[in-house]
Amino acid sequence: MFEFQITSKNNRARTGIFSTPHGDLLTPVFAPVGTQATVKTLTPEHLKGINASLVLSNTYHLYLRPGDELVRDMGGLHKFMQWTNPMLTDSGGFQVFSLSQTRKIDDDGVTFKSHIDGSTHRFTPEKSISIQENLGADIIMAFDECSDPNEVAYTKIAMQRTHRWAERSLAAKTRPDQALFGIVQGGVNPELRAESAKFIASLDTPGIAIGGLSVGETKQEMRDMLEVVTPLLPENKPRYLMGVGTPEDLINGVLRGVDIFDCVLPTRLARHHSAFAPEGRLNMMNAIFARDERPIDETCDCYACQTFTRAYIRHLIIAKELLAGTLISIHNLRALIRLMEKIRAYIAEGIFEFHAPELLAQWSNNAKRAGNG
Amino acid sequence: MFEFQITSKNNRARTGIFSTPHGDLLTPVFAPVGTQATVKTLTPEHLKGINASLVLSNTYHLYLRPGDELVRDMGGLHKFMQWTNPMLTDSGGFQVFSLSQTRKIDDDGVTFKSHIDGSTHRFTPEKSISIQENLGADIIMAFDECSDPNEVAYTKIAMQRTHRWAERSLAAKTRPDQALFGIVQGGVNPELRAESAKFIASLDTPGIAIGGLSVGETKQEMRDMLEVVTPLLPENKPRYLMGVGTPEDLINGVLRGVDIFDCVLPTRLARHHSAFAPEGRLNMMNAIFARDERPIDETCDCYACQTFTRAYIRHLIIAKELLAGTLISIHNLRALIRLMEKIRAYIAEGIFEFHAPELLAQWSNNAKRAGNG
Repeated sequence: MFEFQITSKNNRARTGIFSTPHGDLLTPVFAPVGTQATVKTLTPEHLKGINASLVLSNTYHLYLRPGDELVRDMGGLHKFMQWTNPMLTDSGGFQVFSLSQTRKIDDDGVTFKSHIDGSTHRFTPEKSISIQENLGADIIMAFDECSDPNEVAYTKIAMQRTHRWAERSLAAKTRPDQALFGIVQGGVNPELRAESAKFIASLDTPGIAIGGLSVGETKQEMRDMLEVVTPLLPENKPRYLMGVGTPEDLINGVLRGVDIFDCVLPTRLARHHSAFAPEGRLNMMNAIFARDERPIDETCDCYACQTFTRAYIRHLIIAKELLAGTLISIHNLRALIRLMEKIRAYIAEGIFEFHAPELLAQWSNNAKRAGNG
Repeated sequence: MFEFQITSKNNRARTGIFSTPHGDLLTPVFAPVGTQATVKTLTPEHLKGINASLVLSNTYHLYLRPGDELVRDMGGLHKFMQWTNPMLTDSGGFQVFSLSQTRKIDDDGVTFKSHIDGSTHRFTPEKSISIQENLGADIIMAFDECSDPNEVAYTKIAMQRTHRWAERSLAAKTRPDQALFGIVQGGVNPELRAESAKFIASLDTPGIAIGGLSVGETKQEMRDMLEVVTPLLPENKPRYLMGVGTPEDLINGVLRGVDIFDCVLPTRLARHHSAFAPEGRLNMMNAIFARDERPIDETCDCYACQTFTRAYIRHLIIAKELLAGTLISIHNLRALIRLMEKIRAYIAEGIFEFHAPELLAQWSNNAKRAGNG
């Protein structure tokens, strides 16, 4: 059910087809994030319109609201939010560590207080899998502990715990129609990353996730860790770099053999009026756009760019109209999905490595605002 | 260019076709309100999906933001907001009296302060027409004074001023591709309403608006004023009842010969989680919907009802996801547009008067929340 077929390679970068119960994913793929069973301000029709294939949703959030048993009783996450393509849920671990109030970790699990109402809850590997089975995504994650990469001594403890939890997650899993991925941890320590990669690779899972990056380390550290990890992973399993990231991170990840990415960046930027454009990231509220009759990106095929001017989008922002966030979200997501489409085409033609420096240069421009912003 | 052809009649109710430069309007018609050049949270595609034909936008708001000259320079309101069907702008008069800070009225016009930044501005009939010509809607309004219906002595002064301003508006108008409607005023005084109807009917305009209703008078007073006014208006011009209203008001208006309506009610209710449904107005945040797998309205053909459950929409509200407002807006607007489609069919078949009591009973239910709300 979860076959991964590599269709072309360009050194370590590869294209593939990952088959899931809700259809085939063409990799490398970027997944929009639908934290609370919705990609903020967008309908499923909007997502289909930008050729989104995989959508991520968050176990921690859905467990708290509306509750995983409710989602199960409503027919599962796909039916609940009416997304008919593949879905992925995380384990809840990262949000427990980053969002919840006071939490207490022990070898069995984590007790935490909800960020919404302060109520007390407990996640264990078995509980995380149970929640994810109720949600019913195609790809689910082992419960893990994502530690602060700067606390070296603790990173080892957290990694070892993550390994034990991966085994428990695998043992707890019952649904044959879900692919469980183990998660490589180890902070920014090459030895720990190597140890973790080997351990997670030894488990019988259809794919492997790389966690604990894009959490405060440098860009160089992220690249270094990928250099250590991906060569130790089996070729024939898809690799998912969790919560990453910027367009440059995607390009750098694919160059190092990553197949799946997700990030809230494009939609979060959109709600703050920031749009990806060839000349750099645009602050669409800027007065210079007041009479700009061009679309956000003249090369873009999305609904926002095919329909509206920068002048109109700026007006919506100034007038505090929520449609601005919807339109920029459509564009920003489409920009990253188009980038992945281009990367797949380049890999298939064997020219990705040749074009990567030019892609990186173009998108590094987008790490900061355009000069006019 | 602005022909009005009556296609069927049922006592005073009638169906018609009003031809405009952006297409034919089938009347009676309900116009969604796009205050600031957008129907809040919806794209033009959403509006086409619910068969919206006429969209209203507000002169006062667009004059302040982004400015009518900017809209003109961007190609006019249709192009700016990418609405290709007919549009209507009001004169700005009502908002000057209801929204602006301190204002001073004289026979020449009104000086007022912006509700946004307190800056001082002046509207005259000539200025209102100039702004509306810059915006470029198909149907535009004469500048009028909408007075408090309870101040009887002043109502006469305001009405007489409205008549002089209607003549000045007509004289100021230059664009042949816009239909200017004069506005009948006169508060809740039958004599003044009759005098105003006769005066406005005497002007050479392609249509006539009825203003100053739905501003605090009783439902009975509104019906009474329509009983006085519409028999005094020429048959062959469309009649537009401004800012009205509830579903019952629409039915009562059509029964008394009104052809065009607009109101913010369906979208405003939607943003407050209130949805039109056969059993009454539903508060979609209510816990009883948590596991309700039905759509908002099982008889509705809108995207929201064809796609999502009440349980999902309630989840979006509880999780503070803006998509809830979008989906309920789509449904509430479609509900009123469907009502008008049904009314047109009933009139064409000569059975509208027969069915009106049943329609009124059904929709009076929606004036209040359903028992479960």
